[in-house]
Amino acid sequence: MTIEQAACALRARQVSAVELTREALARIERLNDRLHAFITVTGEQALVAAARADQELARGVDRGPLHGIPVALKDVFATRGVRTTCGSKIFADYVPDFDAAVTERLHAAGAVLLGKTNMHELAYGITSANPHYGAVRNPYDPDRVPGGSSGGSAVAVAAGMVFIAMGSDTGGSIRIPAAWCGVVGLKPTFGRVSRFGVLPLDFTLDHMGPLARSVRDAALALEALAGHDPRDETSSRQPVERYLPPEEPSLAGMRLGLPENFYFERIAPAAAEAVRKAARLAGEAGAAIVPVRVPDVAAMNQISRIILLAEAAAVMQPYFERREDFGEDVRLLLEQGMLLSATDYIQAQRLRRVMRDQYRRVWCDVDCLLTPTTPFPAPRLGQVDVVWNDGIEDLRLAATRLVRHLNLFGWPAISIPCGLDPAGLPLGLQIAGPPFSEARLLRVAAALEARLPKAGPPAL
Amino acid sequence: MTIEQAACALRARQVSAVELTREALARIERLNDRLHAFITVTGEQALVAAARADQELARGVDRGPLHGIPVALKDVFATRGVRTTCGSKIFADYVPDFDAAVTERLHAAGAVLLGKTNMHELAYGITSANPHYGAVRNPYDPDRVPGGSSGGSAVAVAAGMVFIAMGSDTGGSIRIPAAWCGVVGLKPTFGRVSRFGVLPLDFTLDHMGPLARSVRDAALALEALAGHDPRDETSSRQPVERYLPPEEPSLAGMRLGLPENFYFERIAPAAAEAVRKAARLAGEAGAAIVPVRVPDVAAMNQISRIILLAEAAAVMQPYFERREDFGEDVRLLLEQGMLLSATDYIQAQRLRRVMRDQYRRVWCDVDCLLTPTTPFPAPRLGQVDVVWNDGIEDLRLAATRLVRHLNLFGWPAISIPCGLDPAGLPLGLQIAGPPFSEARLLRVAAALEARLPKAGPPAL
Repeated sequence: MTIEQAACALRARQVSAVELTREALARIERLNDRLHAFITVTGEQALVAAARADQELARGVDRGPLHGIPVALKDVFATRGVRTTCGSKIFADYVPDFDAAVTERLHAAGAVLLGKTNMHELAYGITSANPHYGAVRNPYDPDRVPGGSSGGSAVAVAAGMVFIAMGSDTGGSIRIPAAWCGVVGLKPTFGRVSRFGVLPLDFTLDHMGPLARSVRDAALALEALAGHDPRDETSSRQPVERYLPPEEPSLAGMRLGLPENFYFERIAPAAAEAVRKAARLAGEAGAAIVPVRVPDVAAMNQISRIILLAEAAAVMQPYFERREDFGEDVRLLLEQGMLLSATDYIQAQRLRRVMRDQYRRVWCDVDCLLTPTTPFPAPRLGQVDVVWNDGIEDLRLAATRLVRHLNLFGWPAISIPCGLDPAGLPLGLQIAGPPFSEARLLRVAAALEARLPKAGPPAL
Repeated sequence: MTIEQAACALRARQVSAVELTREALARIERLNDRLHAFITVTGEQALVAAARADQELARGVDRGPLHGIPVALKDVFATRGVRTTCGSKIFADYVPDFDAAVTERLHAAGAVLLGKTNMHELAYGITSANPHYGAVRNPYDPDRVPGGSSGGSAVAVAAGMVFIAMGSDTGGSIRIPAAWCGVVGLKPTFGRVSRFGVLPLDFTLDHMGPLARSVRDAALALEALAGHDPRDETSSRQPVERYLPPEEPSLAGMRLGLPENFYFERIAPAAAEAVRKAARLAGEAGAAIVPVRVPDVAAMNQISRIILLAEAAAVMQPYFERREDFGEDVRLLLEQGMLLSATDYIQAQRLRRVMRDQYRRVWCDVDCLLTPTTPFPAPRLGQVDVVWNDGIEDLRLAATRLVRHLNLFGWPAISIPCGLDPAGLPLGLQIAGPPFSEARLLRVAAALEARLPKAGPPAL
């Protein structure tokens, strides 16, 4: 069921918000021990909120499409009175006395919050194998990781526990789990969705966005979330648009770029073929497929890594006395960050501007770019490397290779499912565009979603 | 003679631009061996430019108040075809093939450029005791330093060589030499004057502004210099105002803040008394003198130092192989900067925002702040410490103590002469305000300038 279908059914009294919530809670109850998608389930509060949503609708108070819809929040979003762990032992007992801007906006839209999803510790990794709250499992294969850091959110959506779940994305943390769990993940432009009330991993790379079952659901979520917030210094005053795409969006006249260099090196054949096939379908639907060259992704990833290592270390510095409380992978990253010199960091920031100015010329030639989201589908739990014909690559670096540079520039990108690999694992297609092109990306994504093969939900 | 007087005389044909230029060149010729104010004098080009200015005026082409006026540029501003050393051995032979934005704007305003002024090496210090191009001397006492880093510009103005000279200010580099040489020095708001074509010392602290004989001259210079420049990413689109104050500006209704804490500790009695006297005069002229408390200046100076050390090291990193080519003081600062950690730098940037938010509340209570520019008048050449009753202070830190935090926030400030100390050395009054309050600061400065005792030019 999509949000629009549920919204219709709620208004036609075919279903109540309380019923939707009970069903969702039952599914969480049944699956969470296996999948570890949630750290905290707020069942009682959810039922109260759902009952209120029903009463409001009965009284004619209609908060829009998310009214009465079960949703979840990654455990980085502050929730008043509900603990917010950040997937970390450090914040295991942290109960905020305020709501994050995203939490507020979902409440205001009438959404019913079912709980806080599990994640990679401190949002600093891509496996969501959380040492404190359990390793999140991929619903398509429980021996595989769901991706991260917003792994619990992706699983909650993929496993039908909620309609949408919020994630944060510093170097792919929304798009990677979306790709590996066969759902839609949208990283809006930097500044589009307020970061107020989210523990930062990185001051200049963090983005907040929804994971959803469909492109239209993601668009409805963005409509509820987007807008200026004076409490977030980096929040944009760019006017909010209508993000919901038309019912049968056309691709006629659209110029879709397919990067010839870098993006298709060291890519699993199925992942590359899925994207080329999506491009062919787009071409048949009237889009111009434009081969483009983009600047050196490896250089951009290096810059991005230096900035993230340093800024994350700076954020966590006050807690670093408790270093035994960090998982080993996160501790090692923080230690690396502590060793970086100020000049390295500053040069990375300077190069960031140079690379952005080089890269953004591509937006003169194309309206958006199509790439694989990740070079391969979900890896096995415990896997640390990826083996290619020509060498071995660190799993984290490999998984973030095609997504993280977009955080460097703050550009929007969406990952949509684009079929299954031969082992039945979901593959993701990334569509990226210039600043504040969310409406365009969602239109292209919806057009492709309608044409791409449906993966079908995981068997659970 | 003021710029306005010269402009009248030029238009009345009582004097020609060529005559003004010849006179200025003669004065440079006579005094530069003693004062080392100029690194490069462009006499021939200046006479050609002056002749063209005269021809234009004769033809009725009038470029405004700077038309035909002799000016100078600190040797950080790129000048096409004229070497631009930055006071450094590294750039001793650097001849740019383009003009800095400031150079362009002065040319466009019809100003006659007499040459490039001497400075503290790489603008990284406050004595202007340049090891490569000679120590600039204070015209009030040649055994004393003129201040820096824009020492040559201050001396060129104070010694009557030019009407105005451009400086750059990263932590006081316009205001300190203005104070110690008895001239006016204006640091506009960050983004107000383009930095295009200036070798950066620091990406986020550098400001460009004029040194002048009078407040009105400084205002006329700012009118020629201010405005958006797309080549400087940090250039502001804030509309340019009329900066020239009215002939007899009133202080009625103006709230002038006098900081009670920090600003009057470890201040030479004459310097403190000069500012309190200025405040009394302002009060008599109708201003409300408001005692205010401001955040810890020592903390802000610490933050500012960390940022400057790191960013300057990053800027000069490519040249650091040639470390024997740097003066010892600059080399030590660069070496310190290289040792800073990325997390120190990032925490300083975070604290910078916190302190700004604390400090800016003061602008609700007052329209501007009055403080001494420096805690003492010009020190002796070779002096490295300042001795107080309660201890010894490093000269560089002491001299920048009251000025550098304003660079941290990008706020405008002007230093105007406010009398002589008992030894006959000039003292400076700093007037600081909120972003883009230049017109207000210039009005207050002009009102005080009219009421303060005249120091009289140095005997040369």
